Amino acid sequence: MGKVTAVSPFAPPSLPDVPAIEGVAFATAEAGIRYKNRTDLLLAVLAPGTVAAGVTTRSKTCSAPVLWCRESLRHGRARAIVVNSGNANAFTGRKGHEAARITAEAAAAAVGCEPGEVYLASTGVIGEPMDAGKFAHLLAGMATRATASSWEAAARAIMTTDTYPKLAVREIRLGGQPITIAGFCKGAGMIAPDMATMLCFIFTDAAVAQPTLQRLVSDIADRTFNCSTVDGDTSTSDTVLAFATGTAEKRGAPRLADLADAATQVFATALHDLMRELALMVVKDGEGLSKFVTIDVMGAENDRAARVIAKSIANSPILKTAIAGEDPNWGRVVMAVGKSGEAADRDRLSIWFGPHLVARDGERAATYEEKVVAAYMKGREIRIAVDVGIAHGASTVWTCDLTHDYVSINADYRS
Amino acid sequence: MGKVTAVSPFAPPSLPDVPAIEGVAFATAEAGIRYKNRTDLLLAVLAPGTVAAGVTTRSKTCSAPVLWCRESLRHGRARAIVVNSGNANAFTGRKGHEAARITAEAAAAAVGCEPGEVYLASTGVIGEPMDAGKFAHLLAGMATRATASSWEAAARAIMTTDTYPKLAVREIRLGGQPITIAGFCKGAGMIAPDMATMLCFIFTDAAVAQPTLQRLVSDIADRTFNCSTVDGDTSTSDTVLAFATGTAEKRGAPRLADLADAATQVFATALHDLMRELALMVVKDGEGLSKFVTIDVMGAENDRAARVIAKSIANSPILKTAIAGEDPNWGRVVMAVGKSGEAADRDRLSIWFGPHLVARDGERAATYEEKVVAAYMKGREIRIAVDVGIAHGASTVWTCDLTHDYVSINADYRS
Repeated sequence: MGKVTAVSPFAPPSLPDVPAIEGVAFATAEAGIRYKNRTDLLLAVLAPGTVAAGVTTRSKTCSAPVLWCRESLRHGRARAIVVNSGNANAFTGRKGHEAARITAEAAAAAVGCEPGEVYLASTGVIGEPMDAGKFAHLLAGMATRATASSWEAAARAIMTTDTYPKLAVREIRLGGQPITIAGFCKGAGMIAPDMATMLCFIFTDAAVAQPTLQRLVSDIADRTFNCSTVDGDTSTSDTVLAFATGTAEKRGAPRLADLADAATQVFATALHDLMRELALMVVKDGEGLSKFVTIDVMGAENDRAARVIAKSIANSPILKTAIAGEDPNWGRVVMAVGKSGEAADRDRLSIWFGPHLVARDGERAATYEEKVVAAYMKGREIRIAVDVGIAHGASTVWTCDLTHDYVSINADYRS
Repeated sequence: MGKVTAVSPFAPPSLPDVPAIEGVAFATAEAGIRYKNRTDLLLAVLAPGTVAAGVTTRSKTCSAPVLWCRESLRHGRARAIVVNSGNANAFTGRKGHEAARITAEAAAAAVGCEPGEVYLASTGVIGEPMDAGKFAHLLAGMATRATASSWEAAARAIMTTDTYPKLAVREIRLGGQPITIAGFCKGAGMIAPDMATMLCFIFTDAAVAQPTLQRLVSDIADRTFNCSTVDGDTSTSDTVLAFATGTAEKRGAPRLADLADAATQVFATALHDLMRELALMVVKDGEGLSKFVTIDVMGAENDRAARVIAKSIANSPILKTAIAGEDPNWGRVVMAVGKSGEAADRDRLSIWFGPHLVARDGERAATYEEKVVAAYMKGREIRIAVDVGIAHGASTVWTCDLTHDYVSINADYRS
């Protein structure tokens, strides 16, 4: 961990009250993988019949646990999850795969399932060989003491440079039955620095067909996690996994398989809402941030182009440092639009900082008042909107500013 | 300018002695465009018969002077150059084009040529309307007092956040005649931040056919300036212009037109050497830098892929901050290779920090000693080499670290 330990100004004052989900139980342990005097190992035990869906990093140098999850996701049956913090088990060669296999086998023995029904995630330093012998022997005991109420403990065990645990819940009714969707995630360096890998785990008692759950998770991850960035560095380990125990079905809740069903839509809306909250929690704990920034791009050639432009703005170091300095330096927004490579009409470009129009039709707006916009920049939450004047593509990306604390945190992460 | 005013540790102890080039004369002035008590306006007067070649930014929101230069480059005849610092005349709409036209017309009247034979460059804040009336009237007087020996004054007049003037020279012989190639450039924020636009001007008395000069400048710019980055933000105003007066021809120097000629090759080699030196001077004045970093990528699918991977490494904020912290965090190199999207074989990847092999065949090298590599990181010049294990594509990219001073400089550039 770096020198900066202040809690993010966006840390929620309290954690939500998450009810037990039938078929989901957690246990944590202090395995001493890297950190001392804190939990760094999580075991989730899942009821028979649970299905899993997920998306993983597109990195070409992805970690051993990511490769393991991709195999398990082929069938989507799930009985256990093992997550460790402090070591990413990435770029660890054949030994890394061995560590993953040993962990999965120990978890399978502990909960009574096949190793292929175990999902793994590791977060921490890249390239450090991971010794599964340090913690695999703990899993059997953890399985016997796992409880359904340990949400906060679970969310804390997977933290690295996070300054607060990230936990969210939605409660809906399907077929008259109460259904819970709850999840937690971690990540801070950006959406994907090497030490602040983004991991997210979501659980529900809804009965959801695996292909339906996979479709929903993929689509929603693309509109939530994939629209957030802290510094544009994509991790070797990013993983979003959702688990549906289906335990609500015996209470009379419907089985969700058809995406067009009204009940599936209710579930999808709640899942989207939950995943968006979790994704924003990651950005709002962006390493060293002082401001949370929303970038809205409209008027682009299409939605894909709008997202490329929005990311170009969101990842510009020179704009992010200006925002940290509370400088409404909209010229840097123009630069970031220009460098994105996507179509933009310089003479139709308009830019807003919050409610304030700063540029219109390719030049500074006649109504622009530096003082007014400078005052707006002193707020904690900044919104920058850009109309690039080509067509109707739109996208929103969430990010944060780039501060001295980001430099301090990352200049000595390993020391 | 930001708060940080320390001179780059890479500033050369002295400037080179640049001889006069026949047909090239400079004058500078304090026009007060933005800065006080320093020169901010440069006029270069070029002999009749001078040809120009150049490359400009690929930004979709490029500045009015860039658009003007592109028009003049269509024929490539050149008689004058006007450069101002303090205002980029970018994103200034129709008024920006007007300011460019007024400037070119005043310069044309001053030196006795067509406005289309004038080249323009502006660097500074984006989006601020530029009032050409502030300086156009100075050009006539400047033309009369222009001298061939004012290289340092010229290099200083175009600076913005640069901490030292960037001037270089090569002297060769062609057909037994001494030939000079000299140039200066500016840029600091990165290869192309909004306030530290990269501008480069090169002059020679060699007689070079315009298409030949254009071909050489385009090719070499791609292998020098386009391989350097400070923070990945591409400016609205980047411009590299080369001017050949041809005045050496009457002394018996050959006319260079055929790229395959031995004399053209001698010239091309010297030009490449000069442009590389100028490009590295920009990186070595990267805003707030403490270390100069060379990224060598080999073993890629092809040279283009190697450059994409090298830039992904060079632009990673999390790696750049680790380098600032003297942390040999090679896991972040793995991350940056992975996120580049180009082919890499995780199990054949090798990484060197300077002469030290840190990773081989997809895992930490058996010979790796953290202490040894940590000591290497304390040096001023860092070399990171990566073999991605696919084929034979190679590329070198130059960059610098990301420090607290970068944040300070850019958090309040305009204030």
